[in-house]
Amino acid sequence: MDGEQTDFIWGVVDIIADTDFPDIRYGSAIHSESGSCLIIPREGEKVRFYIQLSDSDVKDPITGRVDKNRMSPEKLLEVARKIIHPYKVHEPKLYDWWTVYIIGQRVASRYSVNERIFIAGDACHTHSPKAGQGMNASMSDTHNLAWKLVQVLRGRADISLLKTYELERRKYAQDLIEFDRKISTLFSGKPKTADNDDGVSHEEFLKSVLRKSSELPWLTVNSAFQIYGGFITGIGVHYVSSGITNEIHQQCAPHLIIGERMPPQVFIRAADARPYEIQDMLPSDTRFKLLFFVGYVTEERVGELDALFDKLRDPSCFLQKYGYPTEGIAQSMFSIITIMSGDKENVEFTQVPELFRPHWSNVLLDDTDTTKKIGGGACTRFGIDPMTVTLVIIRPDGYVGMIAPASALEDVDSYFATFAIPRKAVLGRD
Amino acid sequence: MDGEQTDFIWGVVDIIADTDFPDIRYGSAIHSESGSCLIIPREGEKVRFYIQLSDSDVKDPITGRVDKNRMSPEKLLEVARKIIHPYKVHEPKLYDWWTVYIIGQRVASRYSVNERIFIAGDACHTHSPKAGQGMNASMSDTHNLAWKLVQVLRGRADISLLKTYELERRKYAQDLIEFDRKISTLFSGKPKTADNDDGVSHEEFLKSVLRKSSELPWLTVNSAFQIYGGFITGIGVHYVSSGITNEIHQQCAPHLIIGERMPPQVFIRAADARPYEIQDMLPSDTRFKLLFFVGYVTEERVGELDALFDKLRDPSCFLQKYGYPTEGIAQSMFSIITIMSGDKENVEFTQVPELFRPHWSNVLLDDTDTTKKIGGGACTRFGIDPMTVTLVIIRPDGYVGMIAPASALEDVDSYFATFAIPRKAVLGRD
Repeated sequence: MDGEQTDFIWGVVDIIADTDFPDIRYGSAIHSESGSCLIIPREGEKVRFYIQLSDSDVKDPITGRVDKNRMSPEKLLEVARKIIHPYKVHEPKLYDWWTVYIIGQRVASRYSVNERIFIAGDACHTHSPKAGQGMNASMSDTHNLAWKLVQVLRGRADISLLKTYELERRKYAQDLIEFDRKISTLFSGKPKTADNDDGVSHEEFLKSVLRKSSELPWLTVNSAFQIYGGFITGIGVHYVSSGITNEIHQQCAPHLIIGERMPPQVFIRAADARPYEIQDMLPSDTRFKLLFFVGYVTEERVGELDALFDKLRDPSCFLQKYGYPTEGIAQSMFSIITIMSGDKENVEFTQVPELFRPHWSNVLLDDTDTTKKIGGGACTRFGIDPMTVTLVIIRPDGYVGMIAPASALEDVDSYFATFAIPRKAVLGRD
Repeated sequence: MDGEQTDFIWGVVDIIADTDFPDIRYGSAIHSESGSCLIIPREGEKVRFYIQLSDSDVKDPITGRVDKNRMSPEKLLEVARKIIHPYKVHEPKLYDWWTVYIIGQRVASRYSVNERIFIAGDACHTHSPKAGQGMNASMSDTHNLAWKLVQVLRGRADISLLKTYELERRKYAQDLIEFDRKISTLFSGKPKTADNDDGVSHEEFLKSVLRKSSELPWLTVNSAFQIYGGFITGIGVHYVSSGITNEIHQQCAPHLIIGERMPPQVFIRAADARPYEIQDMLPSDTRFKLLFFVGYVTEERVGELDALFDKLRDPSCFLQKYGYPTEGIAQSMFSIITIMSGDKENVEFTQVPELFRPHWSNVLLDDTDTTKKIGGGACTRFGIDPMTVTLVIIRPDGYVGMIAPASALEDVDSYFATFAIPRKAVLGRD
């Protein structure tokens, strides 16, 4: 493991808080002369306090190691009380859980041996456990690996696909630790005062806490979660360019970032105008999702779609070449979702050629629902031109793998050719 | 039973429809020269067709009674096909279910004998079964009766409270049948043409189908459900003035109608800015919900609230007089929900006196959530003045029972005095 033990010692205590602190049900970051603490409201009435400790609080002066016996939940809460003064926290009836830990920030130098042995989760990275990132990062590691393993084991993808696991996840662990280090340093700094010119000003602290807000514009209140911004939600994770992350046509949708997760977006179903979150239509079922943004379905567009339909039926096209059908428990390779532009009162899902509507529920509309409050605005948000046809390829793990205009179908062929094995070679037939 | 057998004969058939009719996943009302039909999309792929039939289709010419043997699902679908021509419905693989019925529209003359024996549901009213109104009306009957029975059996309310069951529910059954009759007549009318000047014009039909839309403004697409407008959702039900439906202060909230159900409305919780639907905070738990709309909590308002707090603590006040506590499985009589006006960034739930916040989750804010898309606008919508304190009393069945300004607390005392028994008389103590 590459990395180091930090100097940051934290205590954690869960209680049912009887307090006059009015923001007790918000995630709150508090930075005072007595130190820093994070308040995270939990399920039911419980509240978690993360409290930064000093060496003298918990370290054995001889061994230099953290000695939990030097701490107690009562002592932890006493530190928290000083930090949130003048608000009060009364003595709780019960200390639900508590601990003390020192943060080690390390990353394994390799995640795999010959693409045959893999490590994931705590085996390859350790960092601050705050906000569940230990668990979330570990699950995301295996989520990234699982679909790749499946495709290789089914004989549908080359073993080299597995190299992207370390490429993508090791970089992520490094980014997370780097971010964790910056925030921890900031938290450990005492406020800037007349006596302490080296301190962290409240403005700097606040700016740092809030700086991730552009990634999560809807989190305008809950600033404690903004600290971890994109990291906590996974939306900020960005995988680098590779065979499965092809950025050549990023300009077709400049705000739908290739290498990042497809962000939450509500569309309505063209057939019944009910709102659906696109995330719910992108299950981790090992399929690549082909999102055809077909724009306004004018007569000219229908002509284009008919021509595209013909190309997609050609045996040399990726859709046929790698179009493995469902076989037993093995899912088919692709699923098609078509997204029309227009007004729900006028658009009919039957306007697109049949290939683009394998089922009525797969045709969506970039419009608001009947309340006019939910959905719509996706093309504008992503920068997709509704006067043309754009294909967005979502990887089986929900990340945007490639974007292409309908006129560059051969680039999509090349994308799949880097890792997929033609089904003719496997099934012995087209 | 008072009422009559109608001449309206309907067929119903459920199939998985293979059709080019583009609105097959919308509730649709179709009015053509070949007759009328209703299409209701069901769970999964199923679709229900309601088809109006003529006497010759199904009546035995000798007995004059409906003879199901004269019909078949194939024949029903054939009638539907003529109505939706030029769209096609292919022969389904399976007819899931079908029936033929003639509508009887009758209401029992009494719903109760001496408030000791009650009838509900099909025992006291029969009408068109469309859109589940038979089941819904029956459940609403007993829902109306249950909390009244409970309060009387617990000794907290006078037996005369039970008289309001027939008063409220018999009137509702009559209204539903009247509405059903109008719509059925309209459906049975053939379109107005050059040859048939007595027919129903498409404009009249459409107007009627849509006329309930002001009650359900969010249903702008799904017109088949608008037919039944307020009846299908229960929101249009209006109970007449009585001891438990007191309209004297309606002007305090002119658009929150006393005698109707509290409509859906999203507020945010003042303590954590999360959106909550008010319906989810009004469970049918036999409690009266006291919604204190306290407006903007200025210094002046805090003074008013402190004064109100004092009045509410007075032993002669309804809150004390009828304030039964929770006893075993018997719920307490009241629950308090406080609704503040203002901006979530500035308001603190601790600003209201303690009586108005028995728990942090009971204090709401009339503001949007952090997405700025959900919640807010309730005072404007209901016509409640946010510069004063208004009490809205929601009955245990979710209906608005009374509205009162804070200055007319004695009218609220009178409201409860008409049916509630002081707890001193029951518990032998205050």
